[in-house]
Amino acid sequence: MKIINIKEVPMKKVTMEDMKNTFKQVPISKKDGAPLFCFRVFTIKPGGHTPYHKHPFEHVNYIIKGHGYLKDKNGKKRPLEKGDFALVQPNEYHQYGNSSKRTDFVIICAVNKKYE
Amino acid sequence: MKIINIKEVPMKKVTMEDMKNTFKQVPISKKDGAPLFCFRVFTIKPGGHTPYHKHPFEHVNYIIKGHGYLKDKNGKKRPLEKGDFALVQPNEYHQYGNSSKRTDFVIICAVNKKYE
Repeated sequence: MKIINIKEVPMKKVTMEDMKNTFKQVPISKKDGAPLFCFRVFTIKPGGHTPYHKHPFEHVNYIIKGHGYLKDKNGKKRPLEKGDFALVQPNEYHQYGNSSKRTDFVIICAVNKKYE
Repeated sequence: MKIINIKEVPMKKVTMEDMKNTFKQVPISKKDGAPLFCFRVFTIKPGGHTPYHKHPFEHVNYIIKGHGYLKDKNGKKRPLEKGDFALVQPNEYHQYGNSSKRTDFVIICAVNKKYE
């Protein structure tokens, strides 16, 4: 059993092509013995976004805080806010971004432990 | 891709032995095509708790709201509050409960899609 508060988890800036103002924390991962999937938290600062890309694994999301968007495979930005859940399928194009000029956009992004 | 707010997800009372005042929502499940794992939300009302039990699959949790506890394999109640993450391993004894007399305790409980 592991219990950890998000405030105790180290935060690192993510550097990837087309990634802007985005920071990552990994509260639950395979390092903790997670058998199947892990929980990461992304904090996307105002003006920030993740790449518009796809990969062979899914994301399952919960929006903790703020206002943002999830760009779908047709390029449409679908709004996301606190209390929303999202499922992005394997090989589906997607991008997360912050829609606010003032507040952070904070989301859980769960993935197969193979990828974190 | 699926996006849904927790307020739109039907809530059902959970009936199990030693389960009290606990309600479940399933925002992301295998019915949505989730490939590997699903997200449920449990709302444990004041005075409520889940069974003290174990099973052959893990839980990964995020605390959305309220104050509660996670009883560990030694019977110790470890406090949980908003912003906490938890990992309960397969076959590890555990119980979630609400510690407040007034407010709901609301948690994400992610599991292997085989079990939801």
